[in-house]
Amino acid sequence: MKQKDKYEIISEMAKRRGYFWPSYEIYGGISGFLTFGPLGSLLKKRLEDKFRRFYLQPLAILEIETSVIMPGNVLEASGHVENFKEPTVECTKCQRKFRADHLLQEFGKMTDTETEKLTLQDIMDELKNRNIRCPECGGTFSKAEQFMTMFATTIGPYSDSVGYGRPEAAQGIFVEFKRIFESARGRLPLGVAQIGRVLRNEISPRQGPIRLREFTIIDIEFFLDPEDKKCLVLKEVENETLRLVLAENKMKDNTEPVTVTVKEAVSKGIIKEEWQAYFMALAKRFLVELGVPEEQQRFIEKLEWERAHYSVQGFDQEVYLERWGWTEVSGHNYRTDYDLSRHMKASGVDLTAFKESESGGRRFVPHVIEPSFGLDRLVYVALEYAYTKRNKRTLLSLSRDLAPIQMSVFPLVNKDGLLEKADEVYHRLTNEGFTVDWDSSGSIGRRYARADEVGTPLGITIDYTTLEDGTVTLRDRDSWKQVRSNIDNLPDLLHAYFRNKIDFEDLGQLIERRKDG
Amino acid sequence: MKQKDKYEIISEMAKRRGYFWPSYEIYGGISGFLTFGPLGSLLKKRLEDKFRRFYLQPLAILEIETSVIMPGNVLEASGHVENFKEPTVECTKCQRKFRADHLLQEFGKMTDTETEKLTLQDIMDELKNRNIRCPECGGTFSKAEQFMTMFATTIGPYSDSVGYGRPEAAQGIFVEFKRIFESARGRLPLGVAQIGRVLRNEISPRQGPIRLREFTIIDIEFFLDPEDKKCLVLKEVENETLRLVLAENKMKDNTEPVTVTVKEAVSKGIIKEEWQAYFMALAKRFLVELGVPEEQQRFIEKLEWERAHYSVQGFDQEVYLERWGWTEVSGHNYRTDYDLSRHMKASGVDLTAFKESESGGRRFVPHVIEPSFGLDRLVYVALEYAYTKRNKRTLLSLSRDLAPIQMSVFPLVNKDGLLEKADEVYHRLTNEGFTVDWDSSGSIGRRYARADEVGTPLGITIDYTTLEDGTVTLRDRDSWKQVRSNIDNLPDLLHAYFRNKIDFEDLGQLIERRKDG
Repeated sequence: MKQKDKYEIISEMAKRRGYFWPSYEIYGGISGFLTFGPLGSLLKKRLEDKFRRFYLQPLAILEIETSVIMPGNVLEASGHVENFKEPTVECTKCQRKFRADHLLQEFGKMTDTETEKLTLQDIMDELKNRNIRCPECGGTFSKAEQFMTMFATTIGPYSDSVGYGRPEAAQGIFVEFKRIFESARGRLPLGVAQIGRVLRNEISPRQGPIRLREFTIIDIEFFLDPEDKKCLVLKEVENETLRLVLAENKMKDNTEPVTVTVKEAVSKGIIKEEWQAYFMALAKRFLVELGVPEEQQRFIEKLEWERAHYSVQGFDQEVYLERWGWTEVSGHNYRTDYDLSRHMKASGVDLTAFKESESGGRRFVPHVIEPSFGLDRLVYVALEYAYTKRNKRTLLSLSRDLAPIQMSVFPLVNKDGLLEKADEVYHRLTNEGFTVDWDSSGSIGRRYARADEVGTPLGITIDYTTLEDGTVTLRDRDSWKQVRSNIDNLPDLLHAYFRNKIDFEDLGQLIERRKDG
Repeated sequence: MKQKDKYEIISEMAKRRGYFWPSYEIYGGISGFLTFGPLGSLLKKRLEDKFRRFYLQPLAILEIETSVIMPGNVLEASGHVENFKEPTVECTKCQRKFRADHLLQEFGKMTDTETEKLTLQDIMDELKNRNIRCPECGGTFSKAEQFMTMFATTIGPYSDSVGYGRPEAAQGIFVEFKRIFESARGRLPLGVAQIGRVLRNEISPRQGPIRLREFTIIDIEFFLDPEDKKCLVLKEVENETLRLVLAENKMKDNTEPVTVTVKEAVSKGIIKEEWQAYFMALAKRFLVELGVPEEQQRFIEKLEWERAHYSVQGFDQEVYLERWGWTEVSGHNYRTDYDLSRHMKASGVDLTAFKESESGGRRFVPHVIEPSFGLDRLVYVALEYAYTKRNKRTLLSLSRDLAPIQMSVFPLVNKDGLLEKADEVYHRLTNEGFTVDWDSSGSIGRRYARADEVGTPLGITIDYTTLEDGTVTLRDRDSWKQVRSNIDNLPDLLHAYFRNKIDFEDLGQLIERRKDG
């Protein structure tokens, strides 16, 4: 029997315990949509909040919310209507459609660097030369064409009022830049972020959370004065090392990363913009925080023809996943003044900034450095890297600030007043704002196992001693150690614990582990 | 000059300070879309979290996340493709389209209770009888038709794969019920909520946050055993009073509410379901928490023909707003087993629950009580009810847990090391997780005014005494009182203050107010 890989084990657990699963299963499923169940939804929120604390707050980056449906003219101005397309071919026999570049990669052993460069005619030639046929029925392919991968719709009752599902949250920020900039009283640099759903009508979505038609993006647009692009906080990350796969090496088929410090990368001009280097360093640190060690991360520089239409230098941050290999989790692009200039031209509205200077003043269109993360992938990455086994049982070693459920309350038995006592503790803790689970069924060992499987850091057992002296047992998910602690002290201690201010051993008096633990 | 109403004052402030504004203004705007700026986005999040603490947590209601784009067959099964329609007419002269019922209400003095009942032929007759013409050009109207108000699109590359933007988050819960129910190990009652974007292609959206084409909904589906619908927590709210406008009175054109306790409403059968009464009481309390007094709230019972296709008893919670009068903020419907049964039939998948009993066991389709809130409206309601004036200046008296910015740091002057000290305080507080603003420009009085206008509860001033003894001045937004407090004590004190555990006076030593305060 083939051994299950991590993706399979995690997906199976995720479905059963309510992390995530493919949407619309009862209708046979439809590719590209993922449902986050109760635990997944909590994990996703905690990841979002961790990101805010880690990435947005230190730079006072503002957050906004704009609509998912966008009027056509906005996405025409941004260049998406023209550029947000992928090459497709149709089987002449069964009429199925395929992403042409994916066929060439999967069956023609071409790299995406190679396929990105092809014209539609090139694609037809390569498919023929490499003798690639329809993977479903063996048929040949008809003429390649560009398929627009935005979801199109109509806004209001008139059919000529075209709208699209936004393929990125960034455009919402550019279009609303004027008001945001004014409410921030014109300060630069100015970071503006949006965390929200985006829609991409993928032709062939992948399994699970990796290539979705609907997902949550974190787009940060960091606006700069193009004549003053210095990053004042670069010092904080200058000794951070980055593993970079450089464009010039990729051209020579060398994807071995070079390891450089941020300082070197900037001084040697490998990363052209200081702020871009800063955000890449932060992205690396954030992934380390999610449990991904440095050597399982890399940044790939995009070649000219691989970059999005708005980017002059771009790196993709990739993380190694057991099933899919190197997988993009964030993109870092220098968008220059491309977007604001396009919207300024199309709308006729002035989107410049003004800076006073000795000679009077200077008007300019701010430039933009953009870090952009796929949140659903980060959720999966956090799960894969938290996954471990102990005594043949699955254990999710999620950090305290990510674990969806912070603690479980276990009444040792369902009689003699223990249920009532446990209920009291449960309510006391939920009232303090903790996320608490309740589990009173089966042996205490099975309950521990259930909690370990979903990554709950603490188990709180109410036993007969609790009724006598008001103490409970706390059990640590990772070490399986136990301490005994007074209920009255719990709220303060737990607040400190979940703010990472104290260790597990500080929660109470260490006790010998029971044999059933 | 006409005096500005609250909506006008709040909208103007909201635009200028970054709460919200109509989207896509630089392109001339497009009705029905609203952008939440940095402050609005924060307020919306805090409201969401308050709702979770208040409404979801006490009943351990689970949250999930499903997709905004839904396959057509799901919304066919749910009855939306057939029923989610509104009557429109087109002007024969200028070809503009209008919501027919809105024309009859606005220009024909009909109530929505009356228009809801009309057939398409009735509509044409009434428009003619009441001599209603095109409000834009005076033309007459062509034949009325039903316009489907879901956004339609295509999923994937095949044009026959229809999809829609979800008009409610509820369907995502019904469709995924099986897995959620299993992961919750079959417990009933089981509450499942979803907070997320929904799309409704309104023909004539209203101004501002009231009738949007895209908005955030909070849908709660509370699943019950139809043979055991008792609400065990009803006691907690039984003496709560509700102002109800009853269907039987509405039929007689009497919209005067009757005030009854929850206990009475249930025992007299006015509200048929205990859980529905419970959730309505909680909804009332939640709005009181947002600052809306009881007499500015009411619940309107829907007549048979006003109810959605899935509802057997329904109440809309309305709040009085200065500009719009009584405005719906939540809906409370008893959906029975309508949705699960429809999906069970359409998908062929078993969605029943099983309960053991003496005679063996019983299979049944769970019934559903649904409270549903419009989050964007709640944001506006909170702002309108927080709005007040003091010394001719606008002051937003938002509660501590709603105010987007919790405190502002003010260095008294920009020299003598005060900026550096203020910076230190600012970082110490943001590191503690507080949302802190920084304002160092203009007189301290103007800075207080700016903070009051957006509802920031506390001002922290760093002055020369701070350098001497490490104390700062804290100023209360509402009373304009001031206390002096040691910086080292601030984090703990502020955590207690924002958890409503201590009052402003407990934050330090009360001092005489400066004349510039």
